[in-house]
Amino acid sequence: MEVQDNNRVFFPTHVEEVLRESFLEEDTQGRGYVESKNIVNVVRKVLGIFLTHTEKAKVLGKAEYLAVKGLLSVEDFITIMADTLAETTHWGNLKTEVAGYVGIDTLQEQIRKKVLKRGFEFNIMVVGRSGLGKSTLINTLFKANVSLRSCSKSEEKVEIPKTTHVKSVSHVIEEKGVRLRLTVTDTPGFGDQINNDNCWLPVLDYINEQYENYLSEEQSVTRKKHIPDTRIHCCLYFISPTGHSLSPLDIEFMRRLDRCVNIVPVIAKADTLTIEERVGFKQRIKQDLANNGIRTYPMKELEEDPEETVTNNKIRELLPFAVVGSNQQYPNNGRTVYGRKTQWGLVEVENRSHCEFSDLRDMLIRTHMQDLVEVTRSVHYENFRQDRLASRRGRTQFNGQVIDMDSMNESSL
Amino acid sequence: MEVQDNNRVFFPTHVEEVLRESFLEEDTQGRGYVESKNIVNVVRKVLGIFLTHTEKAKVLGKAEYLAVKGLLSVEDFITIMADTLAETTHWGNLKTEVAGYVGIDTLQEQIRKKVLKRGFEFNIMVVGRSGLGKSTLINTLFKANVSLRSCSKSEEKVEIPKTTHVKSVSHVIEEKGVRLRLTVTDTPGFGDQINNDNCWLPVLDYINEQYENYLSEEQSVTRKKHIPDTRIHCCLYFISPTGHSLSPLDIEFMRRLDRCVNIVPVIAKADTLTIEERVGFKQRIKQDLANNGIRTYPMKELEEDPEETVTNNKIRELLPFAVVGSNQQYPNNGRTVYGRKTQWGLVEVENRSHCEFSDLRDMLIRTHMQDLVEVTRSVHYENFRQDRLASRRGRTQFNGQVIDMDSMNESSL
Repeated sequence: MEVQDNNRVFFPTHVEEVLRESFLEEDTQGRGYVESKNIVNVVRKVLGIFLTHTEKAKVLGKAEYLAVKGLLSVEDFITIMADTLAETTHWGNLKTEVAGYVGIDTLQEQIRKKVLKRGFEFNIMVVGRSGLGKSTLINTLFKANVSLRSCSKSEEKVEIPKTTHVKSVSHVIEEKGVRLRLTVTDTPGFGDQINNDNCWLPVLDYINEQYENYLSEEQSVTRKKHIPDTRIHCCLYFISPTGHSLSPLDIEFMRRLDRCVNIVPVIAKADTLTIEERVGFKQRIKQDLANNGIRTYPMKELEEDPEETVTNNKIRELLPFAVVGSNQQYPNNGRTVYGRKTQWGLVEVENRSHCEFSDLRDMLIRTHMQDLVEVTRSVHYENFRQDRLASRRGRTQFNGQVIDMDSMNESSL
Repeated sequence: MEVQDNNRVFFPTHVEEVLRESFLEEDTQGRGYVESKNIVNVVRKVLGIFLTHTEKAKVLGKAEYLAVKGLLSVEDFITIMADTLAETTHWGNLKTEVAGYVGIDTLQEQIRKKVLKRGFEFNIMVVGRSGLGKSTLINTLFKANVSLRSCSKSEEKVEIPKTTHVKSVSHVIEEKGVRLRLTVTDTPGFGDQINNDNCWLPVLDYINEQYENYLSEEQSVTRKKHIPDTRIHCCLYFISPTGHSLSPLDIEFMRRLDRCVNIVPVIAKADTLTIEERVGFKQRIKQDLANNGIRTYPMKELEEDPEETVTNNKIRELLPFAVVGSNQQYPNNGRTVYGRKTQWGLVEVENRSHCEFSDLRDMLIRTHMQDLVEVTRSVHYENFRQDRLASRRGRTQFNGQVIDMDSMNESSL
């Protein structure tokens, strides 16, 4: 069964046999064709239920493209399957049986060793007015003094800059042999002026500058084996605990940046809100986000399978996380806990009935850190790259001739 | 400590302090500078012994570049370190301590889940004259009928084509939840003609065509989230068990292709050689490879650390693997083993005292499969890409104007 003649890729005979049988099963009346809208059923029967949303969408797209009056022949079906099989490892019933232990399960360990040797990179940005506890929260998340303010010498006098500044500090932290280069980017001055017009612009510029640097390294002729990743993988946006709703600046910032970066909104200093206030505030924020079409992380449309959707739905239910940060430890029922002590009680940072710090930490670090990195790479960076390349093309086609500006720049290196 | 002003990346105060202290320790006479050739000692003291060869080479290169009369100031040293720290997670004593469990060790599990979901891809090519047991060996390696011949319908009559053909067959095999899309590429007709001039050319063309496809997808404006990898990760080259030395065609093939693909030479049908013959044959082949400057996998110059070198030295010692393949199983001391039964005894394929099949299988599948993929990506593909981009530039600069042929092609899509 020759499938792609130009690539000279064949599939095993048993694969073609199973495909033909499955087609015949669906074609109960023996007409020699099946309806294109039913083709996903056949595919699912053959490949199993573990097809991702993207794979399903591709199959449907190809089926629609090939169908004549909504009908597909067995040869059409085989063409669709060949394209699908060439891009996935979800082969379901088409898998080839092995007669004994081969050892491909060791690939997990081989990969683990490789990534452990290189270590990980994670870049997180904090945005919000001063005084909302951004530095404290980030220090609480990583149980270390990793915020810019804790690391610079001029810790005592904190001056608010006249415009939004963007500054980063890098650390390496290690746990059980896993090394992470963590870069925390702060945005002092954001939202702190009398007139905050365009105060989001330096933030957007910084994010795009990192994409630009990456793109330029990726396109250079002699590029690095591993391109250092300075792209912002997550932007924690701090909402003032006013108890009202989102401010116009909150909405403006998130609307401007949600296509460029993973935004995770948090309600800062949530210990200032009563239980009822928090519930109502959250509800109004959710409404504001929805009304303004703001896309926060994790995004539903990127989910690949139902399992992921179930996990992420729980997270979306909690958003925006109402958090409390603290570097201080206090004794509490025989244990020491991070918290904020007042005359009337102790707010425990990691107590899930007190606030949602633990939920935020679990998502950012323990369950979704790698996903934040991959979404940045495969969605936000790709969007940037696509726009940049398309606009270069547009600009250069202006003279009726296509010249890639890239290669012109590179040649002057 | 501001390091890269344009990128606005800072390092924590404690990092600068450790760097200054270490510099002063090396500058025993308090002259304010140290010799540039000693700088690696300082770096090693600070970052630990786990610097890779590449990282060491980079540090030395930067030190030489900055040194004045072979001497470096503390500011030079900090500049060197800043560049180094921005590209590695090997921070040794410069790491930031965390005060409790954060959870970054979960990154291993996060990555494992991601790669398991996607599955793996491995493309292996077999090259050698007909009758050397290429199909049998590949079937033995994966304990399944994965070779082209076992999968095509015309199994009975095997015709030798008049030139070298290149044909691939894809499978998915699964073991303990790990799915691998395995593509086996065969080269029927290679070395089987009266005149075998240029019979390696279709093989080289096929390999380069896969690189070209990948490059073109990588450079397209709207590229796939995951580019299907059809690049050949390993080329198993079958040497005739003549007992003499390499044939001129063996040498020609490997010399032409060793810069394009990972070549693993094997002595086919090694059961035809006595112990003494095998030892002598191997020795002469090693000599031939060395005399002709042929680089086989694994390549010493790519090794990143001493541990890797130790492992790979053992493999290089064994090369070329003297192998025997078989689909047949025989009872042997209460167990069933793969082997070849003759009147005078049973050759056990997986018995390390009989042949080196197990060593080949361990390397290809259980220890180095991921490395073969990564070397293909980061060395062979990058070489191809560099040559292609450079030659495009050369061609288009011919008219005194730089035009990227890529974007011209793309615009016609």
